[in-house]
Amino acid sequence: MGDSVSPILVVGSVALDTVHTPTESATDVLGGGASYFCLAGSIFAPIRLVAVVGDDFSPANRALLESRNIDLGGLEVLKGKTFRWTARYSGVRLEERETLDTQLNVFAGFHPVLPAAYRSSRVVFLSNIQPDLQLDVLDQVEKADFVACDTIKLWLDTARPGLERVFRRVDCVLVNDEEAVQFSGQRFLPAAARQILSYGPRVVIIKRGENGSLLFTRDRVFLAPAHPLETVRDPTGAGDAFAGGLLGAVARAGHHGDDVLRRGMLYGSVLGSLAVEDFSVLRIASAKMPEIEGRLSTLVDMISLNGSRA
Amino acid sequence: MGDSVSPILVVGSVALDTVHTPTESATDVLGGGASYFCLAGSIFAPIRLVAVVGDDFSPANRALLESRNIDLGGLEVLKGKTFRWTARYSGVRLEERETLDTQLNVFAGFHPVLPAAYRSSRVVFLSNIQPDLQLDVLDQVEKADFVACDTIKLWLDTARPGLERVFRRVDCVLVNDEEAVQFSGQRFLPAAARQILSYGPRVVIIKRGENGSLLFTRDRVFLAPAHPLETVRDPTGAGDAFAGGLLGAVARAGHHGDDVLRRGMLYGSVLGSLAVEDFSVLRIASAKMPEIEGRLSTLVDMISLNGSRA
Repeated sequence: MGDSVSPILVVGSVALDTVHTPTESATDVLGGGASYFCLAGSIFAPIRLVAVVGDDFSPANRALLESRNIDLGGLEVLKGKTFRWTARYSGVRLEERETLDTQLNVFAGFHPVLPAAYRSSRVVFLSNIQPDLQLDVLDQVEKADFVACDTIKLWLDTARPGLERVFRRVDCVLVNDEEAVQFSGQRFLPAAARQILSYGPRVVIIKRGENGSLLFTRDRVFLAPAHPLETVRDPTGAGDAFAGGLLGAVARAGHHGDDVLRRGMLYGSVLGSLAVEDFSVLRIASAKMPEIEGRLSTLVDMISLNGSRA
Repeated sequence: MGDSVSPILVVGSVALDTVHTPTESATDVLGGGASYFCLAGSIFAPIRLVAVVGDDFSPANRALLESRNIDLGGLEVLKGKTFRWTARYSGVRLEERETLDTQLNVFAGFHPVLPAAYRSSRVVFLSNIQPDLQLDVLDQVEKADFVACDTIKLWLDTARPGLERVFRRVDCVLVNDEEAVQFSGQRFLPAAARQILSYGPRVVIIKRGENGSLLFTRDRVFLAPAHPLETVRDPTGAGDAFAGGLLGAVARAGHHGDDVLRRGMLYGSVLGSLAVEDFSVLRIASAKMPEIEGRLSTLVDMISLNGSRA
């Protein structure tokens, strides 16, 4: 990666997760949307992380992030405990999730303040934090080329006006299929995407897990296949890892034309597929570019009309 | 379509369906897997239909089939009533189906006998009838180039040995995702497809409705997007219409290389998307080639990595 690649600013949660599956558990492992995004995105571009942790955040977790071209100048450390989240997965392919416990801890008082050098970031990812915090960040960013936001059902239910304001100010909205249907009141995804596009973003991405992700612009649709899965160990973080791959590709390319976005969707799928193969960020943190390019070529072949593999 | 296009032999059910949705109903309308397949496939190639109806089968239904390059020389008419099927759809996008009534009527005694001229058919579709009947048909076919079969959960539950014999004798198996998981005992679709491929077919197609369809061969996977839906009026027959588009493309091309199969999957998606837009076979019976090619180009663009639409 050349020094000329634009750094990506990400604002979101860094957490300690406890995850149960029918056969395994992991306790207080590195999690939070921003962590997954950072480790996926940093394969492609330098990252600037704005988040908050407690004074219990381990040196090992900090060292892992620092080892990856992730600038921690915006990682605030407050007295108290780091955000804790506990969930249980079930179902044939661990597709059912039940949140057992959420302890915001120091995250309850999170007010993102961008270090001065971060304000000129050209590529920005607003992870799924409260919309008012996302807007606070946008107010501090000077002139980004590409701003993407994610959200969760909680904000659709409790902070819709703020979310609409966010949608009006970003280039790219990422949602999952249920969120798209709920937000728009439309049953079918093309109509749901059009409704979100009407707020102004150039791009709406609807994530559907193992069924792949759809990229909608005003007059085109792209379907990024999910990488064919052979196993799922912990589904946590797939969406944030996807966003890391996508925005990483945008930052590395230096523009966000349809060609970059479409290939970026495939990088997103690759990082999402890696994320679920192990607990926490273990698998994306150990992924190397040749492996990523190998999976990318499988995805490219999955949408090729050629009679033989390139 | 030139006279040189190979006719497709299809064996399956012709039925009269009664369908309820939350807002509409249709009574005793033309249905059955073979009907949907015929009307979709006949857009691409001549069809030879082997099926059975009762003496209540209307001249209008017969005339509709005959008007479409569908040879009815193998359509047996028995004294009694035509197969009747009644179902109710529900859910946000009518994705839930409950079968309310099945009356086999004359279909209960169906023993497919191929007219002599049909025995040399090069492209064959065994719709989802009882596996022993599918095997009866295979015994009467001389040397087909491409034989595809479909099935339903009922035969997985009640006729697995017969189904395994069918899988050993065909080139292409079509199943939906739930059937693939159940048949194989594998949770993930790539492993499920490999298990089915181990019986010998060169191709396994796993249909996932609005999530698109996957084509597996020994060393490649292709994902055909579903055409972006704006409405669903009656989901009946989408899978059979899909098969009609796919096998139609194979017959028209005269071979079943990966390029033909992959593009054929897209034609299948187009015909499936048309099938659900109206009750019975109404929409596929009225579809014209320019409209089909228009939808195909949307699907091609959905999997294109180009920065602008071709």
